[in-house]
Amino acid sequence: MEDVMITGVGQTPVAEHWDIGLRDLAFAAIQDAIHDAGGIKPQAIYIGNMLAPNLSNQAHLGALFADFSGLTGIEAVTVEAADASGGAALRQGYLAVKSGLVQTALVLGVEKMTDKIGSSVQAALATTGDADYEAVQGVTPTVQAAMTMQRYIHEHDMPIDGFAGFALTAHKNGTGNPDAMYRSGLQLEAYSSAEKTSDPMNIYDVAPRADGAAALILTRSDLLPSNPHEMQVRIAGSSSAVDTLALHDRKDLLYFEAVQLAAGKAMKQEGVLLEDIDLFEYHDSFSIYAALALESVGFAIRGKGWKLAAEGEISIDGRIPCATMGGLKARGFPGGATGVYQAVEAVIQLRGNAGVNQVKDASCALLLSMGGPGSTGVCHILRTRRV
Amino acid sequence: MEDVMITGVGQTPVAEHWDIGLRDLAFAAIQDAIHDAGGIKPQAIYIGNMLAPNLSNQAHLGALFADFSGLTGIEAVTVEAADASGGAALRQGYLAVKSGLVQTALVLGVEKMTDKIGSSVQAALATTGDADYEAVQGVTPTVQAAMTMQRYIHEHDMPIDGFAGFALTAHKNGTGNPDAMYRSGLQLEAYSSAEKTSDPMNIYDVAPRADGAAALILTRSDLLPSNPHEMQVRIAGSSSAVDTLALHDRKDLLYFEAVQLAAGKAMKQEGVLLEDIDLFEYHDSFSIYAALALESVGFAIRGKGWKLAAEGEISIDGRIPCATMGGLKARGFPGGATGVYQAVEAVIQLRGNAGVNQVKDASCALLLSMGGPGSTGVCHILRTRRV
Repeated sequence: MEDVMITGVGQTPVAEHWDIGLRDLAFAAIQDAIHDAGGIKPQAIYIGNMLAPNLSNQAHLGALFADFSGLTGIEAVTVEAADASGGAALRQGYLAVKSGLVQTALVLGVEKMTDKIGSSVQAALATTGDADYEAVQGVTPTVQAAMTMQRYIHEHDMPIDGFAGFALTAHKNGTGNPDAMYRSGLQLEAYSSAEKTSDPMNIYDVAPRADGAAALILTRSDLLPSNPHEMQVRIAGSSSAVDTLALHDRKDLLYFEAVQLAAGKAMKQEGVLLEDIDLFEYHDSFSIYAALALESVGFAIRGKGWKLAAEGEISIDGRIPCATMGGLKARGFPGGATGVYQAVEAVIQLRGNAGVNQVKDASCALLLSMGGPGSTGVCHILRTRRV
Repeated sequence: MEDVMITGVGQTPVAEHWDIGLRDLAFAAIQDAIHDAGGIKPQAIYIGNMLAPNLSNQAHLGALFADFSGLTGIEAVTVEAADASGGAALRQGYLAVKSGLVQTALVLGVEKMTDKIGSSVQAALATTGDADYEAVQGVTPTVQAAMTMQRYIHEHDMPIDGFAGFALTAHKNGTGNPDAMYRSGLQLEAYSSAEKTSDPMNIYDVAPRADGAAALILTRSDLLPSNPHEMQVRIAGSSSAVDTLALHDRKDLLYFEAVQLAAGKAMKQEGVLLEDIDLFEYHDSFSIYAALALESVGFAIRGKGWKLAAEGEISIDGRIPCATMGGLKARGFPGGATGVYQAVEAVIQLRGNAGVNQVKDASCALLLSMGGPGSTGVCHILRTRRV
């Protein structure tokens, strides 16, 4: 069976794009990716988005974006799995190309979250939890994360500011990413004195909601464009799993079983081991989720995820570099687009084009796109292949 | 490459289910389909839904339904393409099984539209058109259809009540479907004297918004359950295409190019000809769309689609039976679930289990799931294969 290659990537800066509409954001990323793939025209579009029907009154994004990009006639659908929508769209694009029935797919992640006031955004975000048992009680994603962090701190012996390493690393990496939302770095003093959003989380433990679009061109390996990049990137693993939607239904609040399952299956596909992975783009929407992701995938034992961050192990030159272009915290968190941004950034790393953020000799990246508190986990493994 | 079989089907009655929640509806159909497939456990769920984030404040249906059905650990996502969401979910399930990476998929269509008042539902439905250029002007799906019907009448020489045949046939077939919303039939007099909803459409030209869930189990042909149905059904064609989202961007208002493309490609997959097709489940959300579907697929020349209905050619014993279990008009129109209902009904026909609605010797069915006024067209061809 042919490999699935990522032959083109595109992205807009992540920001509060009050002057750019949903379709314009999407178009910019689509054009960018098609150009990067040597002008190849996709046969299908898989769109990762979670909130456009609510926040932009716009569903049916497939026809909209295909139309606006001059691509009518091809197939196009939206794939939704809360904030894992981007990863889920990549998974559907991968499966489509693997089927042999689609030769070239465009995977687009797009989200526009900053046009509405905060309470509307929180209400929209709460639709990704259990409407009947969580949202109705005021349990938003932020509240879920705060309760989880509180429990983690209660269970484990850790210092005050034990989670600081996640924000410091992310913001440091953001300084080297021209498309990041925050590029001025963060000092420990600022983290330590930051106001709380939802105790025990402070504002730097919470990734900023943002607007953005990112895109990938997937192509079968026997159909590479005539002028491919010298270093090609292929999808060496892909898997997805779900856990209970509601937090209160978990047997274990502090372990993401769906993440463990998805990562495990993606790695098993080609026998990738943890030590083969050169960088890990996790879903650090909240610091606690970064810690739990490291533990659930197996980079740290339980209760010690925070320590990897505190000891510099997740830095660009550390044992397992994470959030290498700023992650959700510093690059910004454009909802359902996030999983596609992760893939774009990993491709940039694997091509060796990450500049000051370059992970040395990176040849294998693990991506985790997550929906809710580990309710959906989507993992991909990208590896290099020299042409 | 292995065939993709539909080994199990399930559905709830279509109705105004004010006493049944989204997850309960979904669960009923899922259980039904799994039971019908001999108890097989799916590895993935593809959910067709268009309005739950808006009308039920509930996104992230994958984790919700997998959880509620005791299926956590598998993968599950929502696929959205307006009212073509059901067909689009079937297409993703088909591609996943074709890829060889998913052996058994559950395709679920679910929609709950009747809990909210009419204006909320119309606003939600308007998100499936162009929010910036159509919805903002008050152009809802009903308005799009009325304008299209007006143009059709203007262009073509046809009698008053020329569209009656679509409603009369659908309601006649509804009488034989125990899961249909309307089962008491319709007389021409009632159609002729019915009040207008949006001129020139009357209430019988508009399919009733409804609640319901339907489900399919897809399995690779080499992995049939140990106790398969005597008559197996396989997916012999699958294709999808999009047109411009906004009606005003069409070159031709009275031809569904995306439908023609999707049907043509699905038929070409195994060389199916129009005369091979024993029944056609079209998307008769509005009578005019039924006429245009017949013309766009090629069953009628342009301007003569209505005549097929008027002359009884779309009846159970006609040349090309349509809406054989009542269609969207009489079975009811549960939004994004509709495309999955169509597949369930076609399987019942192909198994020979359609009772008084049975199309004689049916062995090949064409399904059209449509989003907006032909903005998205998803076609599947189902054929029998004796075990």
